[in-house]
Amino acid sequence: MATTAARETARVVDAGTYRVTIGAGLRHELGNLVAAAARAHHYAIVTDDGVAPHYAPAAQADLKRHGRTSVHRMPAGETHKTRDTWIRLTDDLLAAGCGRDTTVVALGGGVVGDVAGFVAATFMRGVPVVQCPTSLLAMIDASVGGKTGVDTAAGKNLVGAFHPPSAVLVDVDTLRTLPDAHRRAGLAEAIKHGAIADATYFTRVETLLPAVLAADAPATIELVARSVEIKAAVVRADERESGLRKTLNFGHTLGHALEQASGYALLHGEAVAIGMVLEARLAERLGVAERGTAAEIERVVRIAGLPSAVPGNLSPAAILDATRHDKKARAGAVAFALPAGIGTMAGAERDWAIEVGDALVLEVLS
Amino acid sequence: MATTAARETARVVDAGTYRVTIGAGLRHELGNLVAAAARAHHYAIVTDDGVAPHYAPAAQADLKRHGRTSVHRMPAGETHKTRDTWIRLTDDLLAAGCGRDTTVVALGGGVVGDVAGFVAATFMRGVPVVQCPTSLLAMIDASVGGKTGVDTAAGKNLVGAFHPPSAVLVDVDTLRTLPDAHRRAGLAEAIKHGAIADATYFTRVETLLPAVLAADAPATIELVARSVEIKAAVVRADERESGLRKTLNFGHTLGHALEQASGYALLHGEAVAIGMVLEARLAERLGVAERGTAAEIERVVRIAGLPSAVPGNLSPAAILDATRHDKKARAGAVAFALPAGIGTMAGAERDWAIEVGDALVLEVLS
Repeated sequence: MATTAARETARVVDAGTYRVTIGAGLRHELGNLVAAAARAHHYAIVTDDGVAPHYAPAAQADLKRHGRTSVHRMPAGETHKTRDTWIRLTDDLLAAGCGRDTTVVALGGGVVGDVAGFVAATFMRGVPVVQCPTSLLAMIDASVGGKTGVDTAAGKNLVGAFHPPSAVLVDVDTLRTLPDAHRRAGLAEAIKHGAIADATYFTRVETLLPAVLAADAPATIELVARSVEIKAAVVRADERESGLRKTLNFGHTLGHALEQASGYALLHGEAVAIGMVLEARLAERLGVAERGTAAEIERVVRIAGLPSAVPGNLSPAAILDATRHDKKARAGAVAFALPAGIGTMAGAERDWAIEVGDALVLEVLS
Repeated sequence: MATTAARETARVVDAGTYRVTIGAGLRHELGNLVAAAARAHHYAIVTDDGVAPHYAPAAQADLKRHGRTSVHRMPAGETHKTRDTWIRLTDDLLAAGCGRDTTVVALGGGVVGDVAGFVAATFMRGVPVVQCPTSLLAMIDASVGGKTGVDTAAGKNLVGAFHPPSAVLVDVDTLRTLPDAHRRAGLAEAIKHGAIADATYFTRVETLLPAVLAADAPATIELVARSVEIKAAVVRADERESGLRKTLNFGHTLGHALEQASGYALLHGEAVAIGMVLEARLAERLGVAERGTAAEIERVVRIAGLPSAVPGNLSPAAILDATRHDKKARAGAVAFALPAGIGTMAGAERDWAIEVGDALVLEVLS
């Protein structure tokens, strides 16, 4: 019964080589959905200590009907998105007897998805991964696009691989166990999708906000589905991030730097929220964005309960310095993906990357 | 002058998305060749302590005409083909200021190629690599096909990625500084290419042997070019090793196990030589290979000065145990790529993978 109901309300978005299925209660048919997308002899569930107690036992029980299973846990949080964690998980899979005919099931938020995806990308030169995101951020953004990886002391996501999932399975019911701050953080990427590509959706995000924060299933399914559509369309147009995909980095150049400078005290979505406001201001100062763009983004960011200004304990110089390690730093200069207005990006003629001088960056950071 | 001469004698093999150029003296035009294949802002030469003194300074000087350069050294030898070495090299590249617009230049033998390739595959989710093999083994085999990776305590190449090079540049003159044992070890893969795919070439390898061991350029160019043609044809037919590519594993299931059980005292090519003789014997016992196949392979292996029997200090049980960690182990059983005779493989109808019981494996190991 649950199965039928879940299937009926589910939305399916085509992301190119794989599909993103978004519904309420999908976890009750996880085994069938995973096996249909990436049949294997062994299903290795990679999850974290926060998510595991809620969802791992049922997921494992359901997958057992399709093959051998094992559960591999990592500590929760961005500080554990490291090569050390990747090594430990890889060795755990080997110890559990996983061979080439293994499918990795990433069950958790964005950090779990990135680390588990990188484990899958490099395990015996690559085994399939099915992404089962349990945070709003991961549902909306991180689980789609095939980016996997870990951080190093020098910066975020500096080590990794492109490894598209075999499927993405989104059960919006899992958001009920997500802390409120994380639900708000996830909305930052939805706001970004509206800002970079769809002014109508930007307005719709504002409308859907209260229901999504209350974990209402239909509202969340609508939000996740439209965000995934936008992201998937951009990624399909530019799988390897040589052009259009750079527009997805809006808010992320300063966002990553803020996140790193804060020692990951800021959640990714919180840092991106601040990053979008600052980068939109940068765009206005440069004259590439319509006036009022930054104010409009800041207004919706605040309604979502997200921060919009640099925390007082972070120095502008330290944040600027952290941008140097960004992957988007080319030839010693940092390039930004900047808006032209709500729903459109600037810089198409410059490959969506606009270089900005340090003085101006420091000005908006101050 | 050197440039023109090198170009005139060079052979070029099309390996699908990239080309393998084989000549004498190619290192003198390394900069132009690398830049033509994978232009970048920064060229990061990855090499080892054995190769660096011979070739790194000139390579760096030549690449400097095309951009920023840096040299990153690892200790020589299979025991250093680890995740730790990969981490150190990656951090070295980051410290040298390498960004996304970096091309990795792998200058060394098979170990350097595998590790440097994996660094490139995972550096900021993938940057180009140009393979410049300096050992016969790497020229003939390892640098073509896109396999990269490192070993773990549990076995060889258990962690890695498919990351085809942008180009492979083979300067056969570099074999002059290669120890004789390594030159012989490289011949094992040439013998294998003949055994699995081309009986005429199998005979030709025997003829070319003395000249190749004397580092004669025309003979070596002919040998490398034909081996690369055979390997490239197999790889192009099956990039992801789901079928035909498995035939390249002939000699490697027991070879890897021998190598690991010996604590890497056996060179890869030496272990593969023994592995081919034993696996051909296995094939004869199973009745899938013509009688005399193993004896013929053993004869040529001996002429090449390679070992053909299990070293006395290794126990059959330990070797069998080491096969359990082979990536080709599926569902608890070990499958072999076995010959039908010289130049043809058995098992096409079983996807080139023939499962063999432990008792028979122990018999040929004893």
